[in-house]
Amino acid sequence: MDNVAQAEKDFKELLKEQNAYRETIMLTHWDMRTKIPKKGVEQRSEVVGFLSEKLHQIETSEKMKNFIDVLKEHSEDDFIKKTVAECEEIYERNRKIPSAEFKEYVMLQSKSESIWQEAKEKDDFSLFQPYLEQLVEYNKKFANYWGYKDHIYDALLDNYEPGVTVKTLDQVFPDLRKSLTGLLDQISASSVKPDPSVLEGHFPKEKQEAFSLAILEKMGYDFSSGRLDETIHPFAIALNQNDVRVTTNYDETDFRTAVFGTIHEGGHALYEQNISKSLANTPLSDGTSMGIHESQSLFWENFVGRTKSFWNSHYDLFKSFAPKNLQEVPLDDFYRAVNEVKPSFIRIEADELTYPLHIMIRYELEKGLINGDIKVADLPRLWNEKMQEYLGVTPPNDRVGVLQDIHWSGGDFGYFPSYALGYMYAAQFNHTLQKELDVDRQIASGNFTPIREWLTKNIHQYGKMKKPLEIVEDVTNEKLNSDYLVNYLTEKYTDIYKL
Amino acid sequence: MDNVAQAEKDFKELLKEQNAYRETIMLTHWDMRTKIPKKGVEQRSEVVGFLSEKLHQIETSEKMKNFIDVLKEHSEDDFIKKTVAECEEIYERNRKIPSAEFKEYVMLQSKSESIWQEAKEKDDFSLFQPYLEQLVEYNKKFANYWGYKDHIYDALLDNYEPGVTVKTLDQVFPDLRKSLTGLLDQISASSVKPDPSVLEGHFPKEKQEAFSLAILEKMGYDFSSGRLDETIHPFAIALNQNDVRVTTNYDETDFRTAVFGTIHEGGHALYEQNISKSLANTPLSDGTSMGIHESQSLFWENFVGRTKSFWNSHYDLFKSFAPKNLQEVPLDDFYRAVNEVKPSFIRIEADELTYPLHIMIRYELEKGLINGDIKVADLPRLWNEKMQEYLGVTPPNDRVGVLQDIHWSGGDFGYFPSYALGYMYAAQFNHTLQKELDVDRQIASGNFTPIREWLTKNIHQYGKMKKPLEIVEDVTNEKLNSDYLVNYLTEKYTDIYKL
Repeated sequence: MDNVAQAEKDFKELLKEQNAYRETIMLTHWDMRTKIPKKGVEQRSEVVGFLSEKLHQIETSEKMKNFIDVLKEHSEDDFIKKTVAECEEIYERNRKIPSAEFKEYVMLQSKSESIWQEAKEKDDFSLFQPYLEQLVEYNKKFANYWGYKDHIYDALLDNYEPGVTVKTLDQVFPDLRKSLTGLLDQISASSVKPDPSVLEGHFPKEKQEAFSLAILEKMGYDFSSGRLDETIHPFAIALNQNDVRVTTNYDETDFRTAVFGTIHEGGHALYEQNISKSLANTPLSDGTSMGIHESQSLFWENFVGRTKSFWNSHYDLFKSFAPKNLQEVPLDDFYRAVNEVKPSFIRIEADELTYPLHIMIRYELEKGLINGDIKVADLPRLWNEKMQEYLGVTPPNDRVGVLQDIHWSGGDFGYFPSYALGYMYAAQFNHTLQKELDVDRQIASGNFTPIREWLTKNIHQYGKMKKPLEIVEDVTNEKLNSDYLVNYLTEKYTDIYKL
Repeated sequence: MDNVAQAEKDFKELLKEQNAYRETIMLTHWDMRTKIPKKGVEQRSEVVGFLSEKLHQIETSEKMKNFIDVLKEHSEDDFIKKTVAECEEIYERNRKIPSAEFKEYVMLQSKSESIWQEAKEKDDFSLFQPYLEQLVEYNKKFANYWGYKDHIYDALLDNYEPGVTVKTLDQVFPDLRKSLTGLLDQISASSVKPDPSVLEGHFPKEKQEAFSLAILEKMGYDFSSGRLDETIHPFAIALNQNDVRVTTNYDETDFRTAVFGTIHEGGHALYEQNISKSLANTPLSDGTSMGIHESQSLFWENFVGRTKSFWNSHYDLFKSFAPKNLQEVPLDDFYRAVNEVKPSFIRIEADELTYPLHIMIRYELEKGLINGDIKVADLPRLWNEKMQEYLGVTPPNDRVGVLQDIHWSGGDFGYFPSYALGYMYAAQFNHTLQKELDVDRQIASGNFTPIREWLTKNIHQYGKMKKPLEIVEDVTNEKLNSDYLVNYLTEKYTDIYKL
């Protein structure tokens, strides 16, 4: 074996170790969010800290650096080269931060999250403010360490959506906003209103679970490589390629939380379950970005799960689990009720139309925080002003306003745009898919296999072998285009609200 | 800080790391036995292997050896000294085996377990035989590396029950066997027979689970530091001191599996939940031996859960979950039915009386294997002969005979005696407890707090701070004495079978 072949072999061994820590950390997270008894958390948190440090040590080790240097220059294997590039990105991103600062930051993150929780409970932004100020300062410093071409915020965006910049977002968001608020105005003016009260009633958890399982099964989620559990804040998580778990939350007074939540997380899980097995045990075996991941969950949730065709083919199944009062609701009333548009305070409860507006508010605020245009102290006021401006409602308190999301308390700046990007990607993918397949008829038939196979062939299988914008262009033959989302929403709500 | 204080501090840090790996391995085991999807197992097994190697590296590191040397000589802290002694035992045990041999052995273990499973399924001992022969040879070698005074098997026993030797067992087992078989003969000759058919009927899993939860609650199991899950082969597991989980198995045609299984595992869990918190993050925070652990599970299962007083106070609770057909069974018939004595093939399904006989058969056979008196090839024949001799039944095949238990396939020789020892310890503890507390009245009142507190004060809290035989003598003021078990069983069955 020559030196390069030996280095490739040893590199793969190191990745296996790295992956063992990664899988263990994921298992720990899953357990902490679904199963752990209350008093077990304290000790477990120390264990997670220890494992994360070990993982970080490997990612930033001299050993890793040597493999990167040797293989970058000498390996001729495309898979190895992509893997090395990914490892190098992680290495550089981590090594550019002085380790003392990184440690301080990790401690600040963990402290801030619990302070945020307290501030939210007490509805007292001032408790959280000093922590958020520090988090912003660290992120500014990190952005400068990492570097950027045009806008300091680009350095943060790059962590979540490589290739997407402020320029990209500032090109698409204003038009999108205009279209969405226009549509929202038309809807508000319409005399036709869905009646969500038909959905009310007590829907026992066990029945919701049974329906959730049935839907996941139909989506093609592989239960021999996954499972469904209950949690407070739903997520999907890949422990390894053959162990991709979905979680959901059951609200016995509102089944929509679990049903659409399960389909959403199921979309994430299908992505992870269908990454090519050849990428196993490397950092390439993961969704390529937050945005592309979100495109998969939103595709299933909205472009499949909230369509009329879907409920045409699944209403009987739904009714077989649903409580009495829902048995009598006509399908059309049901369909319209689950698609009601109503500006509200909470992002994760927002409807399809207003959701991107929630994202834009966060994007504009955090961009301002990072480039210094906005002071943390002014956030609550600015938040409420923007809510009024974009959505026409003003949160009555910070708990349902600026304190609602966990992201900033963990220092996650640059993450929010991925949600809106994912939505635009999903609409754009959907448009292409429709040219190749009669999607509507397929959904109406209840056979999702061709849809899932198309997503796997075009998106899932690549993992991180392709960058997000590369996937968008390869699949749709054009750059990011928000028109598809606007067209989709216009068509949908024109029908529902008789615009 | 002087050097010793610094060493103590650094030593504790190393133990924390060691414990982080331990907790992670435990979580992985729990997940693999309760939750993991089928296809996730293969990759996870590699992760467990990796984590186990890391743990082993710390246990046998030069760093650990240095702490042992320094602190053994210079520390004046009793807790540190006991911890160091425990670490030294682990260090010595592991270091005495050449690392190449250890690796071969670990691979052999993992291979043997799957071969054993196959052999059991196919009822073909010859498949397993060559692996078992190798496992025996390794264990002989290891026993010689570890050293012993009187009998080679002592070196293996010491792994599970420190201080107990062949001499100890050969003193108690023959008399115990004579007493048990005598009692068994009387029972067989008795015309009075419980009627287990009254227990038959379909008992839904959910109802069994609800009853299991209620009983654990009454035992004083702390659900804020634990949880109950379903599994195939029940176990209790301590992930950390505040996360001690119980698992059970629901047989819808025979509720006894879950009810007595849950109480049994609950007994193990109470032990782990009540070890002194001051021992956290050290190897002392664990049951002191397999036998003492088993004494706690058997105490709750038999000396509490199978008593007339227990069912007197819990029969109504039981009936509130039980199916219709059980509602009409008179308490006395029920009590006698769950205490039926009937020689059978499977150890884990054996009644209280015949259980120790199953253990003695295994003890005699493995002692013979290790000292060379018995050949692996002769095991099936010898097993069946002993079953006939001790229990009066001959297994119709090896699946319910020599292939039934997993232990030997994992190389666990010296483990089985702990089950019988635990039973004798439990009877002996029970005898002492009865002198201090009206146990029967307490059980009849349904308030287990004084019993649990007594066990915690005398046994649980110490973890590994006391050796098993030290605990037995401290608590009962005498050495191991099998008379208590014989007296207990005689009294119990004299009543049930009117002997």
